[in-house]
Amino acid sequence: MIQPAKEITKRKVEFWFDFGSNYSYLSAMRIDDLASKSGIEVAWRPFLLGPIFQSFGWNSSPFVLQKQKGAYTWKDMERQARKFDVAWTQPTTFPRKAILPLRVAALGMEKPWIGHFVRATMVRNFADDKDIESEDAVREVLAAIDVAADEVIAQAQSDENKARLRQATETAAARGIFGAPMFFVGDEMFWGNDRLEDAIDYASSLA
Amino acid sequence: MIQPAKEITKRKVEFWFDFGSNYSYLSAMRIDDLASKSGIEVAWRPFLLGPIFQSFGWNSSPFVLQKQKGAYTWKDMERQARKFDVAWTQPTTFPRKAILPLRVAALGMEKPWIGHFVRATMVRNFADDKDIESEDAVREVLAAIDVAADEVIAQAQSDENKARLRQATETAAARGIFGAPMFFVGDEMFWGNDRLEDAIDYASSLA
Repeated sequence: MIQPAKEITKRKVEFWFDFGSNYSYLSAMRIDDLASKSGIEVAWRPFLLGPIFQSFGWNSSPFVLQKQKGAYTWKDMERQARKFDVAWTQPTTFPRKAILPLRVAALGMEKPWIGHFVRATMVRNFADDKDIESEDAVREVLAAIDVAADEVIAQAQSDENKARLRQATETAAARGIFGAPMFFVGDEMFWGNDRLEDAIDYASSLA
Repeated sequence: MIQPAKEITKRKVEFWFDFGSNYSYLSAMRIDDLASKSGIEVAWRPFLLGPIFQSFGWNSSPFVLQKQKGAYTWKDMERQARKFDVAWTQPTTFPRKAILPLRVAALGMEKPWIGHFVRATMVRNFADDKDIESEDAVREVLAAIDVAADEVIAQAQSDENKARLRQATETAAARGIFGAPMFFVGDEMFWGNDRLEDAIDYASSLA
């Protein structure tokens, strides 16, 4: 009897994120557990949120540009982090630039260490309130998860890989992504950490 | 033995809404049931969202001004309405102006018919896709819930009551309200239909 290949039938949720996005942090810390409980595969999709915001004429996050929404966001994050039992410190720099770690994530998105790398970088930003962009910072994160830092950083900075992250960002824009986190199940789009459960439930409902 | 007055000890959630706001619609249809299950009182707080958006330099809803977010919103509303078992039709006019019904709501916010009036007006906008702003529309809604329409509409249009809605809108701005629905439990602010349960849980947790 021939079993259908697991890779073909397995249902998948795409998780589009930027390391600077605080609500992406909450999802990054939750998605692997939630998805695995439902037998759903996670596809990690790093992209640059900055160029998307710039295409709307914004030179920063709406949480910076809109004072009232920003004030609310930090209060909301405190409550949401407590609700989901995730460590939280309001970052002293927001949004933190993350080009190098996003390049590393773009390079490693199919690697077994991708979830560890994303979570460790997110924790560094949103729980430890530390720089995540410098080569030293990325090296420290990679070393902590036992990934060969020199090799990965060199590959991440290759022209080919730089193009990979740019391409991902163009794909994000083309698919109508206007914020992060964004989830896709097929073409069905779900915005925000508040919709993570809905996205997984939808993936689970597919035959 | 003297019982403490129920009015004093009862915990309360303020529900700030505009009839033009689609996510306020979802909350309007859910809040009475959710709150009463937890023994929480609902304080209905109509206000004009337009002047708040104008203070940010926006001449309409972000769902109109941001094409991608708007496209997503209608898809999300369809899913959310199904999830909460609420009727839904994407309105052909959005956001619908609602000054007269908001004045009626400001007049009646402590009246026993306020919940009925809010729900009936919301359903007219977001399920029946009908005008809610004209005197005829408001009269029809009031008649359907057995409220003396002529009298209420005349009082709603008095200078005193017009000032009441203006004052509510100024209070909304002063309290940092930047969108709708917005919930308050004391000074604790919760934004969006996605936080309705959190707001009620928080009210329930208070001694």
